[in-house]
Amino acid sequence: MKNIYLLGAAGSIGTQTLDVISLAKHQFHIVGLSLGSDTLKNEHILNQYHVEIACLRKTEDLPYYEQKYPDVRFVTGQDGLMEIAAYQKPGLLINALSGSAGLMPTVQAIKSGKDIALANKETLVMAGDIIKELIQTYHVNLYPIDSEHSSLWQLLRGEEKDTIEKIVITASGGSLRDLTRDQLKHIQVEDALKHPNWKMGDKITIDSATMMNKGLEVIEAHYLFDLPYNRIETILHKESLVHGLIYFRDGTVKASMSVSDMRIPILYALHYPKRMHYPSRLDLVNMSFQPMDEARYPLLRLAYQVGHEGGLLPTVMNAANEAAVKLFLKKKISFLDIEKIVMKTVSDFHNKNNPTLEDIILVDQLIQQQISDRYEKR
Amino acid sequence: MKNIYLLGAAGSIGTQTLDVISLAKHQFHIVGLSLGSDTLKNEHILNQYHVEIACLRKTEDLPYYEQKYPDVRFVTGQDGLMEIAAYQKPGLLINALSGSAGLMPTVQAIKSGKDIALANKETLVMAGDIIKELIQTYHVNLYPIDSEHSSLWQLLRGEEKDTIEKIVITASGGSLRDLTRDQLKHIQVEDALKHPNWKMGDKITIDSATMMNKGLEVIEAHYLFDLPYNRIETILHKESLVHGLIYFRDGTVKASMSVSDMRIPILYALHYPKRMHYPSRLDLVNMSFQPMDEARYPLLRLAYQVGHEGGLLPTVMNAANEAAVKLFLKKKISFLDIEKIVMKTVSDFHNKNNPTLEDIILVDQLIQQQISDRYEKR
Repeated sequence: MKNIYLLGAAGSIGTQTLDVISLAKHQFHIVGLSLGSDTLKNEHILNQYHVEIACLRKTEDLPYYEQKYPDVRFVTGQDGLMEIAAYQKPGLLINALSGSAGLMPTVQAIKSGKDIALANKETLVMAGDIIKELIQTYHVNLYPIDSEHSSLWQLLRGEEKDTIEKIVITASGGSLRDLTRDQLKHIQVEDALKHPNWKMGDKITIDSATMMNKGLEVIEAHYLFDLPYNRIETILHKESLVHGLIYFRDGTVKASMSVSDMRIPILYALHYPKRMHYPSRLDLVNMSFQPMDEARYPLLRLAYQVGHEGGLLPTVMNAANEAAVKLFLKKKISFLDIEKIVMKTVSDFHNKNNPTLEDIILVDQLIQQQISDRYEKR
Repeated sequence: MKNIYLLGAAGSIGTQTLDVISLAKHQFHIVGLSLGSDTLKNEHILNQYHVEIACLRKTEDLPYYEQKYPDVRFVTGQDGLMEIAAYQKPGLLINALSGSAGLMPTVQAIKSGKDIALANKETLVMAGDIIKELIQTYHVNLYPIDSEHSSLWQLLRGEEKDTIEKIVITASGGSLRDLTRDQLKHIQVEDALKHPNWKMGDKITIDSATMMNKGLEVIEAHYLFDLPYNRIETILHKESLVHGLIYFRDGTVKASMSVSDMRIPILYALHYPKRMHYPSRLDLVNMSFQPMDEARYPLLRLAYQVGHEGGLLPTVMNAANEAAVKLFLKKKISFLDIEKIVMKTVSDFHNKNNPTLEDIILVDQLIQQQISDRYEKR
């Protein structure tokens, strides 16, 4: 039995993680998890898995849950997430939290000796250097769950890192890929949320349309695979079948493909290094590859710059984007405003090298607050 | 320094093997090789590499070469190939002979404790079971050089064989892929020799057009990767960039790609498990995949049947094809006669299970002689 901690159990990745666990229930014990705001969903999860500790969003819900599930220890909010991350039993913590809130629980879990399966991009974007140091200090493993990074990780099986010439991350282009920048001006939230290939949460669906998501993934890949930014490329691949490619120095290129189903990378991370059975059929259909148009996607170019400069800039970019996407989803700003806000926020910021975790958390909050304050009242 | 034996040094694969060796000349000592019928080419090779033993095609050439290269021991013909295979120094023997003549030297080399890098498909097609037994008995390694099998071999790095669901070998469709079967009736040798992607020898170029080549590769893959025929698929992929794919049981599919350059798989086999630098750039262009039309390519279907039945049938099919392709290249028969001759020869043959090497060699010679006798006089 493998001990599992699941942060973000009620979200898109969290739900799919529970699907995957239910395929081999006897192999896993879910020790702790964090729930969402949907009581029905929360109770469904609590009824299915006998967890020891669970984190609720709001303190006012405590009495209800504590009475109904007397065997479970309930904690709440960000402190609750930290308590789960620090829980005494060793195991694998799956971080499926969305946004910058995912960073500190990852840090805490590493310090508590847990292996990490990371679906939370922000952890590495904001604090890649610090996380890598912690991983080494505490001798824990860090596994990616993003489909692109899982693909690259799988392609590295049996290969030496120093034989990699470059890696390529594919991008579907998101929901608005067939529109010109001019047409993007009047995009509605509903249009932007229609991803052609993947069923995902709202934030990441918007990030796919702005290509910010790919930018965050580039930074993530930089830390996961120890590669400089000039050896990380992105390419448009509308079919979302190939997720990642590695060019080796001898001319061989390996690609990893699967249908667009996040349960495949989740299954892989949960059972690594074993490959379990999963009922999935990839049909080999014609595949298209097009160079990435940097002018069409300024946020992707920005992510390279920001990743290259390091320091607090990736945190600033991520925070600005997080705040801007929230505003767009609330219809407070237009689609193209997301880019404008992110780019302006980054260019206005005076960078600081070698930030501490405290710096990072503080700047993340300040930037998000600032942007929210400016546009919320509209 | 790795000791190298190169059979078929003057052929297409042989020449490219020498190219690859010359990229890291200090790492290899070519102990022995077999030459071709082009004196200029032969002498060029002998001047470049200080071999200990060399095999000539014809005995009458002995005096000339012996006088000019007094430090080299010259041998001739099939016996000469066997002497090189049996040469006392350990090392890697690259079998780049074409046709059934490649079988016995492989057997001899294994018995002499040499590792084998196999470009000669016929070795495994004719005597796969025997070769696999010998490999185990003599504790030597067998490496594939065919681009498809090299790809699959590379995709297996770090993976467990029992997690393979199926493998897929791609086929370009060869020189005549865009013609209907009706149009194939009047095909000239010159048309059939124009392969769209690969520069190869005449025999294999014709085999690509009839899809016999893919059939031989399916049988080869069956032995190399211990997979039943129902888990080996072929697919049309006109761009010849993806050479092989592995479907794993967890839904992940890995593909291996490279430009159409045989030096890439040769380099890999020579330096395995290391990946050396090779100046090659694969552009990710759009790729097409189409199901294989079995009715269009009856020899491919035949290869599956013959592979499945085993015994002497693969040898019979291969011998009939070898003889028929020779006749076509000499313009004694039409393109579609190749299929007719191969299919009739196989269906007329009374199979024998568990043949000995002597059976295999005898049947190969008999079948080739028979077909040649019948059509040569035309």
